[in-house]
Amino acid sequence: MTQDIVTKIAVLGGTGNEGSGLALRWAYAGYDVAIGSRQPQKALAVAAGLDELLGKELVHGMSNRDAAAWADIVVLTVPYAAQAAILEEIRDVVQGKVFVNVTVPLDPDNVRRARMPAAGSAAVEAQQALGPDVQVVAAFQNISATYLKEVEHELDCDVLVCGNDKEAKRQVIKLARAANLHAWDAGPIENSLVVEGLTSVLIHLNITHKAKASGIRITGISR
Amino acid sequence: MTQDIVTKIAVLGGTGNEGSGLALRWAYAGYDVAIGSRQPQKALAVAAGLDELLGKELVHGMSNRDAAAWADIVVLTVPYAAQAAILEEIRDVVQGKVFVNVTVPLDPDNVRRARMPAAGSAAVEAQQALGPDVQVVAAFQNISATYLKEVEHELDCDVLVCGNDKEAKRQVIKLARAANLHAWDAGPIENSLVVEGLTSVLIHLNITHKAKASGIRITGISR
Repeated sequence: MTQDIVTKIAVLGGTGNEGSGLALRWAYAGYDVAIGSRQPQKALAVAAGLDELLGKELVHGMSNRDAAAWADIVVLTVPYAAQAAILEEIRDVVQGKVFVNVTVPLDPDNVRRARMPAAGSAAVEAQQALGPDVQVVAAFQNISATYLKEVEHELDCDVLVCGNDKEAKRQVIKLARAANLHAWDAGPIENSLVVEGLTSVLIHLNITHKAKASGIRITGISR
Repeated sequence: MTQDIVTKIAVLGGTGNEGSGLALRWAYAGYDVAIGSRQPQKALAVAAGLDELLGKELVHGMSNRDAAAWADIVVLTVPYAAQAAILEEIRDVVQGKVFVNVTVPLDPDNVRRARMPAAGSAAVEAQQALGPDVQVVAAFQNISATYLKEVEHELDCDVLVCGNDKEAKRQVIKLARAANLHAWDAGPIENSLVVEGLTSVLIHLNITHKAKASGIRITGISR
């Protein structure tokens, strides 16, 4: 990837609120973005909706697998129940790429209670499923979808970026900045259990305080 | 416990930096505080040191078991390796009490990498070990000891309070406030994995950014 070639980002499960919101911000920032979906027609429709917001034809729509094959950086925003199947589906076309896991293993019985899979977290599961040649990075799980589509709204939530590859984390921190978010290298992939679980804490706080978009900020370090 | 009786707080493992710092803040706020240690002489010495900072004889020193038996609220700040043994030692004398678990299951091989025990977290383990009649609350794990002993220094870190008993959490939130800290009810005891793991993230950030006391703040909710 050189500077004069635009980075291609695929957002798998990008028809949801979180995925389409991130896709919109990245397209707005100048990235070449594709929405992936199990149903390519749905991906095309969501892409067209984002283009309308952007006032330009910028966003592509494709199947998850085609989007993953096309992109330089692949972002997964599917519900946790769909994660294992989609990882299997795209495994061969993401080798050597940066893979950003946004998926959170929410417990359908109680989304306010953190519960991690046996591997430790959804992102650790993704790393295990995709193999060592994919640079899995966990990020963006705590960003409320509420204000994502207001592209210039500065969101009051930091992004904690976990992964084992420093250069991959550097690229994801750059993506966060492009989306008008402050991001921190939060350590190895295992630390994703903190960030995934924090989503349940924030849901609990939103419900308890009738808030729409609680978040976190790192304190005690100048930014 | 009625309003005119002063709450008695025991800080087990209270000879460490974190425990003695919390003890100091609570004694300063008017609570009746005891330091507990495996070695009562050491507890007495640390209590005397806190009294010197306070300019009054206020803090008691005892064995962990005596302190736990004496107190209304028992706070555990031992290293994780010592947790199972101390829970066994005090189990019978903490029945019916509020038990605040500050212990974090840091991985000695890499304190920057979060790793939870099979039960889910150290606090869930404590709840299982002490039984259903002890109100285990996880709190204060993310508070850096660095500035705790400057009792009027307002620490730039929120306290996330997890537990299954609302009234117990209310009491711990009150304790946090007395220590000049803002606290949030962060949901059920299982969410303690987030707060315990966050300690590794903050250690990672402290090392990376050469900071002394990184922390977190909840955003998006008026306080």
